[in-house]
Amino acid sequence: MSNRPIGVFDSGLGGLTAVKQLHSLMPCEDIIYFGDTGRVPYGNRSVETIKRYAAQDARFLLSHNVKMVIAACGTVSSTASNELNEMLNVPYINVIAPTAAAAAQATKNGKIGVIGTRATILSSAYKKALEKTDPSLKIFQRECPLFVPLVEEGFISPEDPIARLTVERYLKEFKDNGVDTIILGCTHYPILKPVIGEYVGMDVVLIDSGKETAKCAAAVLTENCLLNDHERSGECKFFVSDRTEGFSNIASIFLNSNIGENVSRVDIQKY
Amino acid sequence: MSNRPIGVFDSGLGGLTAVKQLHSLMPCEDIIYFGDTGRVPYGNRSVETIKRYAAQDARFLLSHNVKMVIAACGTVSSTASNELNEMLNVPYINVIAPTAAAAAQATKNGKIGVIGTRATILSSAYKKALEKTDPSLKIFQRECPLFVPLVEEGFISPEDPIARLTVERYLKEFKDNGVDTIILGCTHYPILKPVIGEYVGMDVVLIDSGKETAKCAAAVLTENCLLNDHERSGECKFFVSDRTEGFSNIASIFLNSNIGENVSRVDIQKY
Repeated sequence: MSNRPIGVFDSGLGGLTAVKQLHSLMPCEDIIYFGDTGRVPYGNRSVETIKRYAAQDARFLLSHNVKMVIAACGTVSSTASNELNEMLNVPYINVIAPTAAAAAQATKNGKIGVIGTRATILSSAYKKALEKTDPSLKIFQRECPLFVPLVEEGFISPEDPIARLTVERYLKEFKDNGVDTIILGCTHYPILKPVIGEYVGMDVVLIDSGKETAKCAAAVLTENCLLNDHERSGECKFFVSDRTEGFSNIASIFLNSNIGENVSRVDIQKY
Repeated sequence: MSNRPIGVFDSGLGGLTAVKQLHSLMPCEDIIYFGDTGRVPYGNRSVETIKRYAAQDARFLLSHNVKMVIAACGTVSSTASNELNEMLNVPYINVIAPTAAAAAQATKNGKIGVIGTRATILSSAYKKALEKTDPSLKIFQRECPLFVPLVEEGFISPEDPIARLTVERYLKEFKDNGVDTIILGCTHYPILKPVIGEYVGMDVVLIDSGKETAKCAAAVLTENCLLNDHERSGECKFFVSDRTEGFSNIASIFLNSNIGENVSRVDIQKY
């Protein structure tokens, strides 16, 4: 039994989708969330910089005595997981393995598409994990740098021609090749599910990395007897590296619930 | 006379457009350029964070003994100029005043549009500078967060429907209101001149902040007898806070010339 909190971090606020899933699976667990809003986005940065930022983020969570660290960020998961695994003395979960396993299970024709930031796609982390599961799978990859700003601008409706044309530009190759399963390899992308789904068709399964990662975290905590014994609802504490004003508005988009003003600012460069 | 270099900084690489203009106006001047590629973009961050980052960037340039500091970044210029002015013991130039002056001179009907990042537009820095010049001017403002990623994705052609629709979405109000002059308040935006020009029409003047700022810097150096007495071509040294690999490719888009591998990495958090 451990009554310590679960630590979750992301380059920004997209990782809140994972918090939502964690809370829904394990409602009594306390959660510490850190979003590196002062340095977001990580996706176009170099491997070296991403590793340095990820180590600072994890050290911040450790300073809150967490019992597990979850990298909800596709970029960090695909780039810095070896270093985080070595550095941490608590279980470390990233989005790659659980998401890849769910995709391998979902596909019927063995053709899987992976979308993510530049760093995630360049790392080929999902591709490698999928091919390890089943070397006969055929993997198509595509970086989609416009998807995050589209979400942040709110250009997300299937009726929006800019959203539709951007989805078509990025995913045409998947469609032409008959992909039947797509990994949404960035926490922002589930917000675009309606427009992506409309373009690729209802037969194509969209795998949400936040959801699969939360399921994996629940399994690991259960196996290691690390679930807490609270009977009350778990507390979530939120930390960011830029302004806290306006956080609750944006957070409510991802969490689908009101978090009030339970958010503090951190000088992450000190960690 | 001063043979010290001119210092130029930007949140990323867009400020290289100003370097190009400086070199073309004052070919014998040496230039130190810093692009904060490890923390770009600044445009959506809080005022406090932008001020902190800008102060670090300026201190780095001072450590190279520059005779002038130019903030080529619209976001920094509109948000942190008071602090930089107080902090610096060398002339400080930002993009706002020279660009606003050029726009005020260019307009015939007194209707001026300003586009920029969220922070630039929220600051209303251009609007205030324009209204100070001429209180009868009518100013329209619009933040355009998708323009930078469009440029970085290379979706910049007037034939590209995503570029065209995005320009239309952001600039329709300017067109409807009969704006005859538009300030391109971010260093990336001049790359979109062809698609913006095609939408708003040839009668609308597009003011490029990099160009106007370079002209202003040349005037200030001349007035203060700070031009150097070299007869050789000036040297440019480039510094970034993320990887240097690939820099020369991107730099060549903005500079329109080959800079070779004359670029070093800086740990900007130490300044």
